[in-house]
Amino acid sequence: MGSLLDSHDASSGATSGDAAAPVALICGAGTLPFAVADSLTRRGRPVVLLALRDWADAAAVARYRHHWVAPGQLGRIMRFARDEGCRDLVFIGTLVRPSFTRLRFDWFTLRALPRVLRAFRGGDDHLLSGIARIFEDHGFRLVGAHEVAPDILMPTGVLGRGEPAARDREDITRALALLAAIGPYDVGQAVVIADGHVLAIEGAEGTDGLLDRVADMRASGRIRSPMQRGVLVKAPKPTQDRRFDLPTIGPTTIERVARAGLAGLAVVAGETIVAEPNRVAQLADERGIFVAGVPAGAAPGSA
Amino acid sequence: MGSLLDSHDASSGATSGDAAAPVALICGAGTLPFAVADSLTRRGRPVVLLALRDWADAAAVARYRHHWVAPGQLGRIMRFARDEGCRDLVFIGTLVRPSFTRLRFDWFTLRALPRVLRAFRGGDDHLLSGIARIFEDHGFRLVGAHEVAPDILMPTGVLGRGEPAARDREDITRALALLAAIGPYDVGQAVVIADGHVLAIEGAEGTDGLLDRVADMRASGRIRSPMQRGVLVKAPKPTQDRRFDLPTIGPTTIERVARAGLAGLAVVAGETIVAEPNRVAQLADERGIFVAGVPAGAAPGSA
Repeated sequence: MGSLLDSHDASSGATSGDAAAPVALICGAGTLPFAVADSLTRRGRPVVLLALRDWADAAAVARYRHHWVAPGQLGRIMRFARDEGCRDLVFIGTLVRPSFTRLRFDWFTLRALPRVLRAFRGGDDHLLSGIARIFEDHGFRLVGAHEVAPDILMPTGVLGRGEPAARDREDITRALALLAAIGPYDVGQAVVIADGHVLAIEGAEGTDGLLDRVADMRASGRIRSPMQRGVLVKAPKPTQDRRFDLPTIGPTTIERVARAGLAGLAVVAGETIVAEPNRVAQLADERGIFVAGVPAGAAPGSA
Repeated sequence: MGSLLDSHDASSGATSGDAAAPVALICGAGTLPFAVADSLTRRGRPVVLLALRDWADAAAVARYRHHWVAPGQLGRIMRFARDEGCRDLVFIGTLVRPSFTRLRFDWFTLRALPRVLRAFRGGDDHLLSGIARIFEDHGFRLVGAHEVAPDILMPTGVLGRGEPAARDREDITRALALLAAIGPYDVGQAVVIADGHVLAIEGAEGTDGLLDRVADMRASGRIRSPMQRGVLVKAPKPTQDRRFDLPTIGPTTIERVARAGLAGLAVVAGETIVAEPNRVAQLADERGIFVAGVPAGAAPGSA
């Protein structure tokens, strides 16, 4: 299992003496917040959603104890968390970086504005780490979703029936080495390699954009390797704060990998979130795609 | 000046004792073959074009001594070169890799087929190096366009009036370091960086595709940095055979850099071909773009 899981008791999911206190999930878009909430509930830990209006799925949020908040309302977020007796906060779900001028600020945020502005000017990792320090200065603890809900992580081995062939394993090894080489440059951590040839490296376009590009290059004849050849490999950036941002795969990743004509995808076990793992395994089998979790030690430069 | 130019006499362009013998240019598409031919003519060296049918520009070819050939006709190419008294051959111009089944072979190529096939199965660099060895086994010498026509290379400094700002120079330094890091993986050698953030890394899509992606990300709001910010940086791959494939920029590069909202572009002086340098400088000035040639020593890992 990945190194993240070795460092604490994966069976309880508890990471502190506060295991009985509720966890506040600050929820963005997508299905992951609810997977984390369900995981916490299964292991008997109370959970409160602080749902980001315009991002979190309102129908799903309604099924849990929750309060609605806005990204600019740090004071309101802290007040709800404190009232609910939460010390541990988890940021989870997609939050496309809001434009600064469209944020609705509360008084707390306005008073903290110089710090918030400093954080906002850096990259996304910098922004979240800066916000995390503000919460921590007020007695909260920012924890990663993978720490409180380790069952959302990719295991070592495969999801579904497909296994990487020897050729695929060579491409995976090469891809992990390439990702380690670009890691220091704080760039999107995904590549597509087929038969030893690097077809695409992720930048600001994101993994979906990367896979769409590979599909386009196949369609235009720019990629000559046969269909069902090549792998998508994703790994966490060495620089990223894993409390906010772990690589994530889900059903749409599988659909895009299939459309790009690849044999499968590989991620780092224990350091990658899988949204809807059952659906991922089922879709992978339907499309004839393998989904592999490689041990963290196999990724050069991994934690 | 770049290290390539230090190693021989740039003023004569001669690279061997054969300076009076004509050079055979095996010509693909684009304007570069004619820039090289004109450069050779200016320095008094005779030139013969072996023009690849369906690729070379027929109207321009007609202005030079020439013969028409096909990519699969290695025997015919060698016969013309020998009849013309050429020992030095230069591959120049664009040649989108032809599909193997559509190549027209002559007898020589058919007899050499096992070697040609072995070369064809590798990457493009491998293909050309393999073909080069076949020519060399028959007494020819494959030389780089930059060796016989050094005035087609990017000089140190700038083309046009624009100069990189301090911020741009930082992005250039970071980009060259990133390119050096991915160099061992034989991947497209261009990146776009703005304000220290890596926006895009070139894979199989090529530099035009890379720049179009940056333009799309600007249009969709995925890139937040202001317009006229960021640089395109290109460098030769450490693994590539520079006789066949040096990074090339031209007027369309400038148009695309401008559309991508970048401040300018930087390439390695002495190791980059500039197609239509006067037009490049004029367009760069019109679009407010800088075009910088950085010394080869500034590029980590450069020759």
